[in-house]
Amino acid sequence: MEEREISQAVIGRLPRYFRYLGELRDKGIERISSQELSALMKVTASQIRQDFNNFGGFGQQGYGYNVEFLYHEIGKILGLNQQHHFIIVGAGNLGRALGNYINFEKRGFIFRGIFDKDPALAGQEVRGIKIMPMTEMEEFIRKNEIDIGVLTIPKAGAVEAAEKLVKNGVRAIWNFAHVDLNVPEGIQVENVHLSDSLMKLSYNLRNGSSN
Amino acid sequence: MEEREISQAVIGRLPRYFRYLGELRDKGIERISSQELSALMKVTASQIRQDFNNFGGFGQQGYGYNVEFLYHEIGKILGLNQQHHFIIVGAGNLGRALGNYINFEKRGFIFRGIFDKDPALAGQEVRGIKIMPMTEMEEFIRKNEIDIGVLTIPKAGAVEAAEKLVKNGVRAIWNFAHVDLNVPEGIQVENVHLSDSLMKLSYNLRNGSSN
Repeated sequence: MEEREISQAVIGRLPRYFRYLGELRDKGIERISSQELSALMKVTASQIRQDFNNFGGFGQQGYGYNVEFLYHEIGKILGLNQQHHFIIVGAGNLGRALGNYINFEKRGFIFRGIFDKDPALAGQEVRGIKIMPMTEMEEFIRKNEIDIGVLTIPKAGAVEAAEKLVKNGVRAIWNFAHVDLNVPEGIQVENVHLSDSLMKLSYNLRNGSSN
Repeated sequence: MEEREISQAVIGRLPRYFRYLGELRDKGIERISSQELSALMKVTASQIRQDFNNFGGFGQQGYGYNVEFLYHEIGKILGLNQQHHFIIVGAGNLGRALGNYINFEKRGFIFRGIFDKDPALAGQEVRGIKIMPMTEMEEFIRKNEIDIGVLTIPKAGAVEAAEKLVKNGVRAIWNFAHVDLNVPEGIQVENVHLSDSLMKLSYNLRNGSSN
């Protein structure tokens, strides 16, 4: 199946399907029609069918979708049947919060290390893992085959840190630094710009637009 | 000027313009053409002009844009010339990280209170503000005219907390809980679903799509 051409908009919606299907599964629901899923998720049934058709459709509409099957198929598409090893760069509150979030592990994202340039933090632990000095990061990445780097440092150091990550084999960056990164072709970046998100909320608060 | 019809896609891009213009201003740059801004931000000049035309255009293309003027105009559109008062619901690592983030204050978002259901946390401080028990939240919102609630609690308690926020006058929710909230018409919700973001990164890592 050719998945490369699928738009980022569709891909961005897959985790939400995955979340709803997981909740249905946990409630013991075995089948659901696109109409029922539509009402639950507040997207049109046509949107759901179009999204699923990018991946071959996942089953007969007349009988609805098999929840367990659909949950696992979408999980596979999202790569959640594989393990990814990540490190966190920056052991401030946000870095610690992400390191402590055990749900990532359930999805195959394994927390392997956390680094900070502040030597005073070295030796403190985040979920049983000692904070290491930044000077040890590059060797650690190479030795431990880290594939995801999580950037939770201020923007001043983020560009240089991203370069080090990529140079040592990291293939994906989850970027919380308030800066856009320039990375080589083939390196994936997913930005979480919290200030941007808050400003969007501010706009909508002022203008009273509906969701 | 009628701003209500502007799409969420355009609104979602405004904070990024604001960020780049702020950086240009800090470097002492007074004017910039849409071509230069295009090269810097890696969006087409046509996209920039279309986005700005939603707000009247902001100045003559031949001479480029006045950076200071454009920065302030976009800031006003985003409501950053007004003050917003927010509380944080949930004093875990993520709640503390957001409470400690002083850049929000520079944009007019004033941190007023933080609440947690764990009585053991009561009295601990986040940036000089004592963590309060959840039982005091509703009265605090009413007395202090809080307009934004930040939800950083697990999804189990998030729906109930959101109802309490809205019932007591909060008009906007910045939702980090891993659940979609049902709120009355006119209440703004901005979701930051971190797991969804990480799954999107996982998909792109597996499929090697370009950014």
